[in-house]
Amino acid sequence: MNPYEFVDANRKEFIEELKELLRIPSVSTLSEHKCDIRRTAEWLRAHLESIGMSRVALYETPGNPIVYAEWLEAGDAPTVLIYGHYDVQPADDADNLWLSDPFEPDVRDGNLYARGATDDKGQTITQIKAIQSLLATGQMPVNVKFIIEGEEEIGSRNLPLYLRNHAAELACDYLVISDTSKLDAQTPALAYATRGLVYKEIILTGPNRDLHSGQYGGAVANPANVLAAILNSLRDHQGRVTIPGFYDDVVPLTPEERQRLGTHGLSDADLVAKTGCPSPSGETGYTTAERCTARPTLDVNGLCAGYTGEGAATVIPTTATAKLSMRLVGNQNPDAISLAFDEAVRQVCPPTVKLTIRNHSHCAAYLAPTDSPGMRAAAQALADSFGRPPVLTREGGTLPILPLFKEVLGADSLMLGFSVPDCNLHSPNEFFHVADFVAGTRCILRFIERLGHM
Amino acid sequence: MNPYEFVDANRKEFIEELKELLRIPSVSTLSEHKCDIRRTAEWLRAHLESIGMSRVALYETPGNPIVYAEWLEAGDAPTVLIYGHYDVQPADDADNLWLSDPFEPDVRDGNLYARGATDDKGQTITQIKAIQSLLATGQMPVNVKFIIEGEEEIGSRNLPLYLRNHAAELACDYLVISDTSKLDAQTPALAYATRGLVYKEIILTGPNRDLHSGQYGGAVANPANVLAAILNSLRDHQGRVTIPGFYDDVVPLTPEERQRLGTHGLSDADLVAKTGCPSPSGETGYTTAERCTARPTLDVNGLCAGYTGEGAATVIPTTATAKLSMRLVGNQNPDAISLAFDEAVRQVCPPTVKLTIRNHSHCAAYLAPTDSPGMRAAAQALADSFGRPPVLTREGGTLPILPLFKEVLGADSLMLGFSVPDCNLHSPNEFFHVADFVAGTRCILRFIERLGHM
Repeated sequence: MNPYEFVDANRKEFIEELKELLRIPSVSTLSEHKCDIRRTAEWLRAHLESIGMSRVALYETPGNPIVYAEWLEAGDAPTVLIYGHYDVQPADDADNLWLSDPFEPDVRDGNLYARGATDDKGQTITQIKAIQSLLATGQMPVNVKFIIEGEEEIGSRNLPLYLRNHAAELACDYLVISDTSKLDAQTPALAYATRGLVYKEIILTGPNRDLHSGQYGGAVANPANVLAAILNSLRDHQGRVTIPGFYDDVVPLTPEERQRLGTHGLSDADLVAKTGCPSPSGETGYTTAERCTARPTLDVNGLCAGYTGEGAATVIPTTATAKLSMRLVGNQNPDAISLAFDEAVRQVCPPTVKLTIRNHSHCAAYLAPTDSPGMRAAAQALADSFGRPPVLTREGGTLPILPLFKEVLGADSLMLGFSVPDCNLHSPNEFFHVADFVAGTRCILRFIERLGHM
Repeated sequence: MNPYEFVDANRKEFIEELKELLRIPSVSTLSEHKCDIRRTAEWLRAHLESIGMSRVALYETPGNPIVYAEWLEAGDAPTVLIYGHYDVQPADDADNLWLSDPFEPDVRDGNLYARGATDDKGQTITQIKAIQSLLATGQMPVNVKFIIEGEEEIGSRNLPLYLRNHAAELACDYLVISDTSKLDAQTPALAYATRGLVYKEIILTGPNRDLHSGQYGGAVANPANVLAAILNSLRDHQGRVTIPGFYDDVVPLTPEERQRLGTHGLSDADLVAKTGCPSPSGETGYTTAERCTARPTLDVNGLCAGYTGEGAATVIPTTATAKLSMRLVGNQNPDAISLAFDEAVRQVCPPTVKLTIRNHSHCAAYLAPTDSPGMRAAAQALADSFGRPPVLTREGGTLPILPLFKEVLGADSLMLGFSVPDCNLHSPNEFFHVADFVAGTRCILRFIERLGHM
């Protein structure tokens, strides 16, 4: 039996295993799920042992454990390091938008619905199943290592130290990451760039309790009004971020990239259809496709102040809070941007409220060459698996590990991603197309075989 | 026996009657007290009959009944309409903060403790006892009417229709309300102004669900960013509201008022001590005392958008909501302000999000002349009863009944209030100083006598 036949023969079992993994609500942003995080890591350890990896370990961190596995019996052949993450976004369902329980996987119309179905448990399982198929059939042509972390959704905060401490153990020639999507249902994509992220929380405190707005309204600074002024000051009416120096290290798009984004990137019509927004909106002088992948941004992610229940209450809130984040591109330095942000906010904030700025995640952008041997092998594997050549893309999202891997391990990452763009990532009814789960498994398999023959 | 001697002779009995009324838990915000509300209204009906009012009636409303009473045997003498309310705030005692049962009145250290002791059963009884003393001694110099409602604590929602339907029956020359407090324990106050209120909710909707800010960030309008821009646009950096026409009908403070607020109004030091704010803040050119009573405001009362839990989530929120309210002064018209607000928000709101504006409560300011015969009589009665002349004050809060009485009955209200500012209104251990109960009764008596001699 060759490994492809093994995939076909075990397809149902693979999906049942994925479902088992999806049932554990490993939400990393909520501390109440600490136990579920641990159960998920233990599940993966046992699973990687069961598929024949020669050494499997859980590395403890100050946060969530990292699952490590290796099979190094291919001698001088190249070494491939495969990365995935087992933590997932929250799945609050206050508005009853999930059509099935987010943690009870449900297959409907050829799609598997669950929180993590694609991001990233589903795609991690495609990687594991490809390696299993090669090991089970005795045809593994390369050395393989896995690291599967549990903090990707909260900024991979303990991965850097782990990587630096285990750089020798993790040495590799190629890195494979499956946490991205295809261009559309039919067309594979091969991403060579991701955006960075600097995530901040602004907390303004005014009075020592909620005040009656009749009694004190007009005579004290209202933290919510001040917050609006601060947030408004951070962007101009052309959608440009006004923080001094913000654009200094942005790498301009090449004519070739602009052309590619013009052909394959998100169109205005698609944006409207996919988001329900009345129209596109963004930085003057750039297209929708450019804005959401190749340009930096500043978006408010959350606002909270005062009375938010039904009806009306006449309070002046004691605090007002905004969570907000900047996506970075090219060579923008997250440390420098973070400091410039703090300085800009301090400049605008009046002394009539107390300002606290909290730092959440914080990560550089990634930009790789598009013509390396690894990229060519990946492109060929995608073309063979999905019936047409991949489009080279820039991802609008952030993968903190890419700049980190490049820095610590010296390797570029190959982003073999198999979900579809409208898979409700981070939203209710996240899903993975079952056929893509299978094709993705075969694609990793092909890529590994190609590396073995290079 | 003159009426003052009657008060002295019956002091103990008056207090026992007040206690009887306080024992009925007429909480209007909780539907489980419907029966108690009815019992209270019936108690008042019987009581007003017993003191010699010539006609007493309960008027039914879609909510709680209104108690009406009249004595119209003074011929051409002026008519005084006395307003009070018999409903009270809840007295939940989850934290065991009440030192005695809120509905079992207890006299300690010269204070009578109970829910409603001052707001407003205690002060309503001072009014009734003054009228009783005049009727019992055959010395009533004016015509008298009472309306005592049961929905003040829930916004007097059925009062406007009742007033309009019974305007002829309620016709009067003077209105007396005892539902405010003295300036401090020693100094009586006479309020001649309250602020109005226009309360709005802005709801901005962008994408049809929370989006991943990596995927779409930069290419769609973020409702939370837009909300910040809208809110920021409504006030300038001098703390002035920028809605066109907003200040057109504000009645400027007279030099005399400014002087009075400077002497008796809230000082900067008191503001900081009472609120914990780092410093006062407000409209340029006005003092703290002026800002919180005599100037209109625009305050955000609540903000809600996107992710507000622990940690960070990179969403572009589908909606962003602000509750906000404007306090009005002088002749500002709430309808006109409401429309101007909507128009200003619509002007600033880009077409890239959907805008909904919801109206909550909505009420005019009240500003009475300070030199009318009624005000002079009230000031003299307060001075005679408390040993020093009252300070004329502006209230920063809103009393919807004042502009309503003015509009429907054409009469100004005289706010003869006898509680102290720290009487735990709406809080545990509400109390009425017994000496103030007696002095208040004598004050109403003196006021009525003065009107009779005018």
